[in-house]
Amino acid sequence: MKILVLNCGSSSIKYQLINKENEELLAEGIIENIGDESSLFTYKSERHTFKKKEMIIANHEQGLKDIIDLLLDKNKGCISSPAEIDAVGHRVVHAGEYFSGSVFIDDAVVHALKECTHLAPLHNPANIKGIEAVYKYLPGTPQCGVFDTAFHQTMPEKAYLYAIPYELYVEHKIRRYGFHGTSHKYVALKAAEFLGKAISELKIITCHVGNGASITAVKYGDSIDTSMGLTPLEGLVMGTRCGDLDPAIPLFLQENLDMSPAEVNTVLNKKSGMLGLSQLSNDMRTIEDGIIKDHDHRAIRAHDVYAYRIKKYIGAYAAAMNGVDVIVFTGGVGENMPILREIVCQDMDYLGVKIDRDTNNQWVGGTLDISAQDSKVKVLKVQTNEELMIAIETEKIIKSRDDIK
Amino acid sequence: MKILVLNCGSSSIKYQLINKENEELLAEGIIENIGDESSLFTYKSERHTFKKKEMIIANHEQGLKDIIDLLLDKNKGCISSPAEIDAVGHRVVHAGEYFSGSVFIDDAVVHALKECTHLAPLHNPANIKGIEAVYKYLPGTPQCGVFDTAFHQTMPEKAYLYAIPYELYVEHKIRRYGFHGTSHKYVALKAAEFLGKAISELKIITCHVGNGASITAVKYGDSIDTSMGLTPLEGLVMGTRCGDLDPAIPLFLQENLDMSPAEVNTVLNKKSGMLGLSQLSNDMRTIEDGIIKDHDHRAIRAHDVYAYRIKKYIGAYAAAMNGVDVIVFTGGVGENMPILREIVCQDMDYLGVKIDRDTNNQWVGGTLDISAQDSKVKVLKVQTNEELMIAIETEKIIKSRDDIK
Repeated sequence: MKILVLNCGSSSIKYQLINKENEELLAEGIIENIGDESSLFTYKSERHTFKKKEMIIANHEQGLKDIIDLLLDKNKGCISSPAEIDAVGHRVVHAGEYFSGSVFIDDAVVHALKECTHLAPLHNPANIKGIEAVYKYLPGTPQCGVFDTAFHQTMPEKAYLYAIPYELYVEHKIRRYGFHGTSHKYVALKAAEFLGKAISELKIITCHVGNGASITAVKYGDSIDTSMGLTPLEGLVMGTRCGDLDPAIPLFLQENLDMSPAEVNTVLNKKSGMLGLSQLSNDMRTIEDGIIKDHDHRAIRAHDVYAYRIKKYIGAYAAAMNGVDVIVFTGGVGENMPILREIVCQDMDYLGVKIDRDTNNQWVGGTLDISAQDSKVKVLKVQTNEELMIAIETEKIIKSRDDIK
Repeated sequence: MKILVLNCGSSSIKYQLINKENEELLAEGIIENIGDESSLFTYKSERHTFKKKEMIIANHEQGLKDIIDLLLDKNKGCISSPAEIDAVGHRVVHAGEYFSGSVFIDDAVVHALKECTHLAPLHNPANIKGIEAVYKYLPGTPQCGVFDTAFHQTMPEKAYLYAIPYELYVEHKIRRYGFHGTSHKYVALKAAEFLGKAISELKIITCHVGNGASITAVKYGDSIDTSMGLTPLEGLVMGTRCGDLDPAIPLFLQENLDMSPAEVNTVLNKKSGMLGLSQLSNDMRTIEDGIIKDHDHRAIRAHDVYAYRIKKYIGAYAAAMNGVDVIVFTGGVGENMPILREIVCQDMDYLGVKIDRDTNNQWVGGTLDISAQDSKVKVLKVQTNEELMIAIETEKIIKSRDDIK
């Protein structure tokens, strides 16, 4: 089964065409700056390395058409007919409380996504545009929605309720949702598989640390708590997002620094995190160089805050689950920054966490056990693959529908 | 040495007259609604039970005068001359980064408190009024300032920095300060004394849970992290305060519910916490009755969130200190609500925490060891006494100055 995985952002479309049978990646690419004077189309196919071309792409519909045209192109493409695409799997950011799993997309699902638009004003409209473009250019192709929030719908009330007036939850659905669910689920399953254990027997803490970052307590296969909240702003320190903050600070900035709500929003989402703390960069490679090569106190300071926040969440989620069996690092930073994993796991022997420094410094893809031999808790580095997970979920839904027919 | 301890709020003065030699409480009382049409003066002296009288008290200066008059009253009082008051100890809320300990109050200190007014706009002006009233009505009496924030000034950078633009810290001093420092310090010292150990050898987590609530990691005698932040809004769920929240929520309320910043401030400070979550009350006695007597799902829901937040902080601070030797519950709720302590400590054997249910249910003042015999971590209930701590600190400062003379 060949599945086209689409991740539509407000001005971008990321895609992968995956042959689910052998998990082969047939094609991948990204269109950026949709709607601008000039858009950038970067793509790779099985026969090509990455290429970039500037084009005028007015909207998501046009973008999807260009992607399909490229997939069908005799020289650069990899399929000979649109019918070869068996299904489309969409990464959708916010499903509110509507869906606790992936779903076959029909009118009711699109309606539900529209209902959640106020919760994800930038992302959900883009996802809906992507779905509508598929209706137009791949008519009859089944579509599935795989939600960032769905995996976390198993959280108990005590984890998802904020201590604000209860009617704000009932009437306005203000609660913790969590994000990165597809990645947390994927790496938790991978970790269990790697250890040869049933996920239903394991207490796992998954640290998805990239430019966005979140951490999840996965107890016996279910997400029981996660650090992102109503929005992806809460929790860990991120590239440019602040994560946890005294909730009085947004108001303090408005009152004392005469900022508008929009300005506060920009500061907390775009100018904070590692960029704001380090005054250097939001790119962790720069921070890593700053620590290791330059001994730059700004990089060290920012990284200390960053690692300490992760450490505290690991502690909190160990308490939430009454212990932890496995800690997983994943995401662009989690997979590729040994010094981060080292500092997070330092002085954690109260919990039985101990990593092997040499193994931790190895550059190995896939899954790697970085725990010391005498570590009671397994510490793993797991390469995430959200697109593959979306393809897996999409295939599962399509096949279950075929079974019913 | 007789010390008058003053706690001046925006429209109130709480006081105690303490004989430091034998720790005897000579008199205590509170004036509320200062500046209103009618103020309420509630007082107790060694010869009287609590009495209330309505009076017109225009300002803090008048309030202090009325307190002194009452202390000197032939029938209701307990001293015969103002000179019997050897010193005044003020509870001051916010000292910013100026003071990491208690101080003798002089002009420079008053100036520093004025500099911190934007950090505590309701409290610091009241504290300054109290200091000025003492200059007027107890001229020549030495005054000391004991700060809610001071104990936490030992926090490392990684604990006090938020991941926001660093210049907001440098230029506007936006950072974690923490509060309730006097109580956290007092009960940590009491716990060490009770266990017959040096505080410099212990990792202690102190949970000060009252209508306001905060939790502190006290490592070898120093506060290394605490849950309240720039303001007392962050951290644990409180009576009417929300504690931790996605920092996008204050902006979300403004954008989606058309609230003004002032309205958001009111919701998060006055209508949230247990009051908002339970829709019943901010009074934990009502919540406790709701859980135990009425099995009210609203009380249970709110209490679950409340206890779970404390549990996660204990986990986080155990990670921050690489373990914990002692957990202390204190404050109005922490001392008097066995069910809270029980639920927080349930399913914490990964950390070696286990309480004895029967002991936990005993109504005993002072300090009580509620841990089970085989608990690796000592769990104590300790009666806090911020006023006594202020008297202790005040005496220490006065005596050290006398030594120098």
